[in-house]
Amino acid sequence: MAASSNIMTSKFFMATSPSSWNSTNKSKICLQQIDRSSNTNGKMVKFTRDSSLKVKLQAQALLTNDSRATSMIESLKDEEMMTSPPATMEHLTTEGRLINDGLVFQQNFSIRSFEIDSEYKVSARAIMNYLQESSLNHRKKMGMSSDSLVGVTPEMIKRDLLWIFRGMCIEVDRYPSWADVVQIYHRIYTSGRTGLRLEWIVNDSKTGETLVRASCLAVMMNKKTRKTCKFPEEVKQELKPYLTTDAEPLFEADKILCPQVGKMDNIRTGLTSCWHDLDFNYHVNNAKYLDWILEGTPTSLIHSHELSRVSLQYRKECLKDDVIQSLSRVVTKETGLSTNNQEIELEHVLRLESGPELAGARTAWRPKSICRQTIN
Amino acid sequence: MAASSNIMTSKFFMATSPSSWNSTNKSKICLQQIDRSSNTNGKMVKFTRDSSLKVKLQAQALLTNDSRATSMIESLKDEEMMTSPPATMEHLTTEGRLINDGLVFQQNFSIRSFEIDSEYKVSARAIMNYLQESSLNHRKKMGMSSDSLVGVTPEMIKRDLLWIFRGMCIEVDRYPSWADVVQIYHRIYTSGRTGLRLEWIVNDSKTGETLVRASCLAVMMNKKTRKTCKFPEEVKQELKPYLTTDAEPLFEADKILCPQVGKMDNIRTGLTSCWHDLDFNYHVNNAKYLDWILEGTPTSLIHSHELSRVSLQYRKECLKDDVIQSLSRVVTKETGLSTNNQEIELEHVLRLESGPELAGARTAWRPKSICRQTIN
Repeated sequence: MAASSNIMTSKFFMATSPSSWNSTNKSKICLQQIDRSSNTNGKMVKFTRDSSLKVKLQAQALLTNDSRATSMIESLKDEEMMTSPPATMEHLTTEGRLINDGLVFQQNFSIRSFEIDSEYKVSARAIMNYLQESSLNHRKKMGMSSDSLVGVTPEMIKRDLLWIFRGMCIEVDRYPSWADVVQIYHRIYTSGRTGLRLEWIVNDSKTGETLVRASCLAVMMNKKTRKTCKFPEEVKQELKPYLTTDAEPLFEADKILCPQVGKMDNIRTGLTSCWHDLDFNYHVNNAKYLDWILEGTPTSLIHSHELSRVSLQYRKECLKDDVIQSLSRVVTKETGLSTNNQEIELEHVLRLESGPELAGARTAWRPKSICRQTIN
Repeated sequence: MAASSNIMTSKFFMATSPSSWNSTNKSKICLQQIDRSSNTNGKMVKFTRDSSLKVKLQAQALLTNDSRATSMIESLKDEEMMTSPPATMEHLTTEGRLINDGLVFQQNFSIRSFEIDSEYKVSARAIMNYLQESSLNHRKKMGMSSDSLVGVTPEMIKRDLLWIFRGMCIEVDRYPSWADVVQIYHRIYTSGRTGLRLEWIVNDSKTGETLVRASCLAVMMNKKTRKTCKFPEEVKQELKPYLTTDAEPLFEADKILCPQVGKMDNIRTGLTSCWHDLDFNYHVNNAKYLDWILEGTPTSLIHSHELSRVSLQYRKECLKDDVIQSLSRVVTKETGLSTNNQEIELEHVLRLESGPELAGARTAWRPKSICRQTIN
């Protein structure tokens, strides 16, 4: 269900600038032990070493050294010019482009008013949408079939194979606002014998500041048997030119999340999808699961905190008429909902009202750092 | 509730190209009596003269004369060059620009995979989102405050005034697909003493073909008294340079829709909104109402037909925890759900489970003209 063992490494990877995705710039920086109670301005997401979802903190380490971060971004710009055909801003926004010899895909997104939440910030759901779009566009540029919006190779089509998302992890340092333009960088590498690891960095296009890091595990499944399968050699060959092979992942492997339904104390029942949430196969799309997780989160927490991190593991597909329950509980031992200035973590379960579980998740929340603007 | 009498005219307006929004190109073309049973390829939306929502059909008239339509689009291009500063495609996509001496606003949208429905076409909900975004960007360019995403003038802020949407009418000739770029043209004019009429034309950016026409009535309301009010002279002066004054509306005035709850035979209960659907004030955004209307539409109709037109009248705001019922009934006398190749019309009511009505609507549906693509 989770990522396979080859990404359980102890080396570290610089994530502030996508230039770090090029092996020539790779460097080692020690993972820092973070005090959960310090730095509460919402700028840094903190997970302790013993958290179930450890994060590589090199991005934050670099952010403490502005000149170095700037230099990294500048070097990426030079590299883009050298390795990629010139692209207009139009192309970056509409279809994106391959850079770094085809190993990285870049696309811009202008944040729309309908993607903004009640705090005037882009919603986490909208960020998930951007990640999906950039990944599909990357696979399209790689020559995968995009007719059915699933991004599969010709050899996969021959063998009735498709991609299924198993897990998603998103970490947000800062949510941009309406009309901001974000620049997404996406790369892909193999994860074990059945999986692809997709990774994204989302930067502020004006400042280069890294706003979001995300990772997703996609596995290959046979459409007829509904079982996962190894990469056929022919598919490996198709993917080879576009896969990053010598880099470390942005996040450590996801631990399998097994929240216990019986322990949950926030329960939201009767959730459904609408037509707008369905994919080509009348299945509910992956991003909708995040909506449901938020629906099962205590309202008081949503008013006082913002989502800083979500790790989501998909267990079962969901159909149009399914009725969902969203359950959650606070798992942060040393804090409670009433405690200010501390990050709060929750466990979540999504399940059908008939019983089967659809997904497990873990979220982290930090106090809202920016006051609501005055309503005119 | 509906548009005021000054737009109840009998003159006609050419709508194929936004160049027709310039009075110098205005022309009169007779409204045609359309045979509901002919032309069923989904290219033309047809409403009979006695329909409650008559449509001006000049766009279709022009579409039958390709060279003339092309000429109209070419003339717009020339006009843009003469009256507007040059704009890069980037600006058209991210923020849009004023053209035609500030009377028309133009913005491009690239259709994303997450805005596509199960038929691989952009959803009507996504189109409503584009309309909202382009209108807000237009008002931003006009100097209205955009901090709170409501687009009000400085004089409106002084007087605690805001805009409330009363009604929306959207007519879709053809739904574009993933990665298509649409070009939206938006104009504004006064409607009576309290209202603004917003109008949009959505074109295929490659061919210039008109895909969508839409109109919305926004009225001025006092935030404290919650009552509509006339335009103060100072607000009139602020808006004056940007308002179209001498054109005819795309649609005739909306007839007030009063569907009777007791007559409805399709009922969907237990609908709710999620956090992603809320505006700054924790109210459900206007586009969500369309989702709920579709939820109350018979599933068999959604599978066999596509929405060609919706007229929606808002009666009451909706809050996060409200539980909604969506009711509908087929009102097309001569057809039923089982009859192929004919347009079907429905009436809809959205109401709170506690009783009060949120909205009334009327939709028209045409048989799906394009077969579903093969699923790879």
